[in-house]
Amino acid sequence: MKVSAKVLKKKLIYIFKKYSLSSTHAKISAEAIIKAELVGAQSHGLSRLKMYCDRIKKNLINRKPKIKIKKISKSASLIDADNSIGFVSGDIGIKQAIKNAKSSGIGIVAVKNSGHYGLSSFYAEQAVKKNLLVLCFTNAPPALAPHGAKKSLFGTNPICFGSPTGNNVPFILDTSMSKVNRGKIRLAKKMKTKIPEGSALDKNGNPTTDAFKALAGVQLPIAGFRGSGLAWMVDILSGVLTGASHGGKAKDPFDDFSGPQNIGHLFITFKSNLFLSNYIARIKQNLKRVKKLPKIKGVKDIMYPGQNKYKRYKKNMNKKINIPHEILKDINSL
Amino acid sequence: MKVSAKVLKKKLIYIFKKYSLSSTHAKISAEAIIKAELVGAQSHGLSRLKMYCDRIKKNLINRKPKIKIKKISKSASLIDADNSIGFVSGDIGIKQAIKNAKSSGIGIVAVKNSGHYGLSSFYAEQAVKKNLLVLCFTNAPPALAPHGAKKSLFGTNPICFGSPTGNNVPFILDTSMSKVNRGKIRLAKKMKTKIPEGSALDKNGNPTTDAFKALAGVQLPIAGFRGSGLAWMVDILSGVLTGASHGGKAKDPFDDFSGPQNIGHLFITFKSNLFLSNYIARIKQNLKRVKKLPKIKGVKDIMYPGQNKYKRYKKNMNKKINIPHEILKDINSL
Repeated sequence: MKVSAKVLKKKLIYIFKKYSLSSTHAKISAEAIIKAELVGAQSHGLSRLKMYCDRIKKNLINRKPKIKIKKISKSASLIDADNSIGFVSGDIGIKQAIKNAKSSGIGIVAVKNSGHYGLSSFYAEQAVKKNLLVLCFTNAPPALAPHGAKKSLFGTNPICFGSPTGNNVPFILDTSMSKVNRGKIRLAKKMKTKIPEGSALDKNGNPTTDAFKALAGVQLPIAGFRGSGLAWMVDILSGVLTGASHGGKAKDPFDDFSGPQNIGHLFITFKSNLFLSNYIARIKQNLKRVKKLPKIKGVKDIMYPGQNKYKRYKKNMNKKINIPHEILKDINSL
Repeated sequence: MKVSAKVLKKKLIYIFKKYSLSSTHAKISAEAIIKAELVGAQSHGLSRLKMYCDRIKKNLINRKPKIKIKKISKSASLIDADNSIGFVSGDIGIKQAIKNAKSSGIGIVAVKNSGHYGLSSFYAEQAVKKNLLVLCFTNAPPALAPHGAKKSLFGTNPICFGSPTGNNVPFILDTSMSKVNRGKIRLAKKMKTKIPEGSALDKNGNPTTDAFKALAGVQLPIAGFRGSGLAWMVDILSGVLTGASHGGKAKDPFDDFSGPQNIGHLFITFKSNLFLSNYIARIKQNLKRVKKLPKIKGVKDIMYPGQNKYKRYKKNMNKKINIPHEILKDINSL
């Protein structure tokens, strides 16, 4: 079935409100899910709706969170998200980080007691719109085996970096430390498709392209020891530092209903003109230099991170969103 | 030939002073080179000595730099290193970042008009000793082809992250965005050994294990688009933001004597107890959880980043340093 973003948004807000989220929280959550669909990240979109509702129903996502913002300095704030839905914690977190950077030049905001917050790029984009550079880190339930281990412990733990570019399309790098996004494996399981070779091992340590077996086994990090180290860094920054769960203790939102997830996020924001007044001219020149390079066969344009997603968003924004049968069943049941 | 670190240090200080560096600058530079040898990063050690001296001789490294530190806020400082030797710019940069973090909770220090500063971990270690968390970014001359391009533009652009651990061995991730460190390829060229398969292409775009051909061609980033994006982020943070060269314009210290390198660095430092008083207890627990995991065959201990280097350092610290014939010739000629 196909529906317009507008109709879908109404439907999602209706569902979240039915599950007792406030209007504001329902709206933030619906928009994040729809945006994921529009940029082509279906793994972070409607395929997670039922999970969110299940967790609200079991009081693992707090319908009426009392979110506390502790101001530590002009730059630093600590947010206790009180197990609110991750989209809302992320939204409050980045807004505080923007405020701190605007007033002092640099902001650093830690969020604890949060949940899966969708795509990091949602939050990075908000900061970039305010002419800030931004780093977002979030941890996630175990998916990747540390280098040398045969059991997963790190999440896919994305590193996200954003910068204004002086044009409509921001530079937004949003890259997980797994060879393949875990959400894509979940979607492959749901849609009964295969996952790329070399991206996961089954529970016995053998390579697999079966999404079901991969989810029961371990995913492989990018670049061996390097990717494992980067995932570890993200766990420290978003988990150890913030007061959230860490070291493999963040709960899987799909499979573990023994308590709230307690995911952590860290946002670092700073003014693009903190050191120089001509940052925008310089970044324009930077992008131009890269784009001018001779290209390998078959490549027409060297894209910067975020450009592809933005293209898909523009292309999809006035089209209807395709809802696979499996997911339509979910929506109708909620 | 083998010499003790002590004797070698004297020798290096003597050489740098002969090339008109001040006693302080000669000492900082000698220590950085020796430390690289002791941790087993020969590519960042003595193999670069002749290059540094050649650049000093040609006035491309400034013997008597007038380094300017511009305080922008309690947290932010911009340093114009006046083309000093990179070790000195890096040292002044991290010390300012430590000071800013100690006084305001978070420091952000940009350095421009610098040069190759050795291992990022030198600077990260200084911050970690002061109980800070630290991120170091530096750009470098073209070595990696952006994803989709057949010409190099990004440097190997390392990401470095450090954290105290509550024990003697800090967590120091220092990872270049290339499959293989460029310094290792240079060393392989010098020592006439092969480089690993899959780490570089020759100038015609064909895979090669010949260090000479690899240096004339392009190195490959880790993880395709992801690694390319991370290298781009590092170029933006350390080059575009700081006022240093960027977008492939930083000069190769070995091959390009047309002007100073104008490398940039960015240091972000913050207190480990910025948000919580029990950070050290938490990181200890984190490391313990990872180390406890079941290991793959042949692995005795899951090492955290920095542990291996520290082990080598301890092992080598009271042993004599081996100086290959090629490099001994350099030293004697200087």
